[in-house]
Amino acid sequence: MTDEKEQYSDEPSRVRQLVSEFLSGQSETDLEVDGLDVRLTLGADAKDDCAVYDIAAPLTLVVGSDYIRGPRFILHEMGLLSDFDIGYYLVAANVSDIAAMGATPIGVLSVVRYPHELNDADFRQVMAGIHQACTDSGTMNVGGDIGNAERLILSGTALGVCRPGKVLRRSGARPGDLLCVTGPCGLLGAAVAYFPKRDTFPTTLPADAEHRLLHSWKRPRARVAEGRLLARKPYATACQDTSDGLKATIEQIMQASGVGVRVTENNVPVDSAVHMVAELMQVEPLALAMSASSDFQLAFTVAPEDAPSCREEFAAQGLDFIVIGEVTDGDTAELVSDSVSRPLPGVAWKHQKTDISLLAAESPGTQR
Amino acid sequence: MTDEKEQYSDEPSRVRQLVSEFLSGQSETDLEVDGLDVRLTLGADAKDDCAVYDIAAPLTLVVGSDYIRGPRFILHEMGLLSDFDIGYYLVAANVSDIAAMGATPIGVLSVVRYPHELNDADFRQVMAGIHQACTDSGTMNVGGDIGNAERLILSGTALGVCRPGKVLRRSGARPGDLLCVTGPCGLLGAAVAYFPKRDTFPTTLPADAEHRLLHSWKRPRARVAEGRLLARKPYATACQDTSDGLKATIEQIMQASGVGVRVTENNVPVDSAVHMVAELMQVEPLALAMSASSDFQLAFTVAPEDAPSCREEFAAQGLDFIVIGEVTDGDTAELVSDSVSRPLPGVAWKHQKTDISLLAAESPGTQR
Repeated sequence: MTDEKEQYSDEPSRVRQLVSEFLSGQSETDLEVDGLDVRLTLGADAKDDCAVYDIAAPLTLVVGSDYIRGPRFILHEMGLLSDFDIGYYLVAANVSDIAAMGATPIGVLSVVRYPHELNDADFRQVMAGIHQACTDSGTMNVGGDIGNAERLILSGTALGVCRPGKVLRRSGARPGDLLCVTGPCGLLGAAVAYFPKRDTFPTTLPADAEHRLLHSWKRPRARVAEGRLLARKPYATACQDTSDGLKATIEQIMQASGVGVRVTENNVPVDSAVHMVAELMQVEPLALAMSASSDFQLAFTVAPEDAPSCREEFAAQGLDFIVIGEVTDGDTAELVSDSVSRPLPGVAWKHQKTDISLLAAESPGTQR
Repeated sequence: MTDEKEQYSDEPSRVRQLVSEFLSGQSETDLEVDGLDVRLTLGADAKDDCAVYDIAAPLTLVVGSDYIRGPRFILHEMGLLSDFDIGYYLVAANVSDIAAMGATPIGVLSVVRYPHELNDADFRQVMAGIHQACTDSGTMNVGGDIGNAERLILSGTALGVCRPGKVLRRSGARPGDLLCVTGPCGLLGAAVAYFPKRDTFPTTLPADAEHRLLHSWKRPRARVAEGRLLARKPYATACQDTSDGLKATIEQIMQASGVGVRVTENNVPVDSAVHMVAELMQVEPLALAMSASSDFQLAFTVAPEDAPSCREEFAAQGLDFIVIGEVTDGDTAELVSDSVSRPLPGVAWKHQKTDISLLAAESPGTQR
């Protein structure tokens, strides 16, 4: 057999020979989704114009698309993330939006366009990462678009379903609700701040901290189980994933709900690796943790009286969340610490204008 | 007001100020789809993580994704297609896959990533083209991903629904069925073959022929009405859009259905502009018409006894189709002309290896 590293098959061959193992057996599958009657009638293995679902019961369908940055995916360019890893990340990013709505994924479509230089083995790795992330999220890669382009381009769409009307919006937060997050934020942003400048810092991080930063990119987990629990009662009055960073997420929930928030500084979970990167950068750890960072925790609000039973349901599945503040009837986001109040630190993500280096400029220098 | 040609707003501003007029009033819309009970609960105007549909009745859902070539979109690079035009094309390409399944579109998600050089006015034109094409297809741009990238990247996803089990596959063609197409193919491929080399040909085409070639790219029409009619009885035993060119489409239907086809040379509709380009290229017109050309006719098969009433239903809506051959129990595609038979001419689209210039090499030189 010829070495795949030296092979550059055309698109029909890649679909037929390299990808088919990841796509086989999809069609005519009954999907087990919360008792909802959904059947994948034609999957990617059917090689038709579209994927086809047969839906028997009333339900709510959610769908979203996310592009992920190819060449600006700097850790991939540096060789720290593999082709498998970025395929995996593509799916996690798309499924995260489904999780944020409290829905269960029923399929992912992937757009994988590649330059001539991408050989069969590397192409196969991208598709293997996509496949693995779908499997880990309990879903399938049901279609998309494979072909060439000037450079690697990865985009996706995820579909999910939930019981009728049980969808979690960003707009339902009410004054008095608790503001919560499913885990520490900012690891992915800290990784991007650290690795490209690694050699310019006076010291490097311990191996386990570096591993944790990289792992956050390699195997991100969309919070599907958490989202489903939050939609069950529903517990969450508002919910969003933190893929724009925690500060931007909080601001968007505030804006959609017409409320303010008061965040308790000491309650915001900051991973020790983020602490260490902030120290090297000489910025405030909390600011780094809340700034642009495309990780996939869920930020949500819950009525105080519902929080205990919500936590019990989480615990029964080995899950947890952290209360980081409360919703106010104002229109600002404030951070309180030892009865001193100030605006939320960090730089909210705005695409063109976001540069994590702005952190240094805005940081008050109050490192912890 | 500042000139948008000189403005480069960040992504939240673009979404808020430039795009909102195209997205307003979507949420809480009952979609009228063949009596199926589908409601767009959260559209793009809701600015949540996903678009949300509430589905009450049993139905079949179809979904597909198509990326369109940004910088290799050569007619756009040459200034012959505007930013509006490529936004329009993106939607037509995606809705065409829905039409090919016999479904009615219920929404399009668009991924629009742009370089820093794309000013607000040009960005707005891309979104306006997307909006117009959605409107012309009877649907809405319900979400997607807007943001920056190294260069313009356009990708999309379309969703559609049809009555349960009424979906049109590629796999149902049976020997004896008629092979049909909804209109002439190859205009888009001919345009790409002609304009970049326009100055190297001994003559140029008449203005009306040039207009027709360009218009095929500027305002492609996804054959939604035709697909819906073909799914009604259903009339079509197999159906696919011709976005890979007619030859590739026929080969894919053959492969999916396990049949052969016999195409009658004189019945294949060839636009006079395609004829003229083929003459300039010194290739066979039929070969050019059947080769890689990303247009959006539907190729389908229908039982001979169903063809008359199918044609009546088409005519009642001002539509038509052309019978170009028949399905055989063989496994080859042959072209018959005056009782002489030969393989189908043209170069089927295969991404990496497709180059329309191959036509010159494979053409038997039998120009008409």
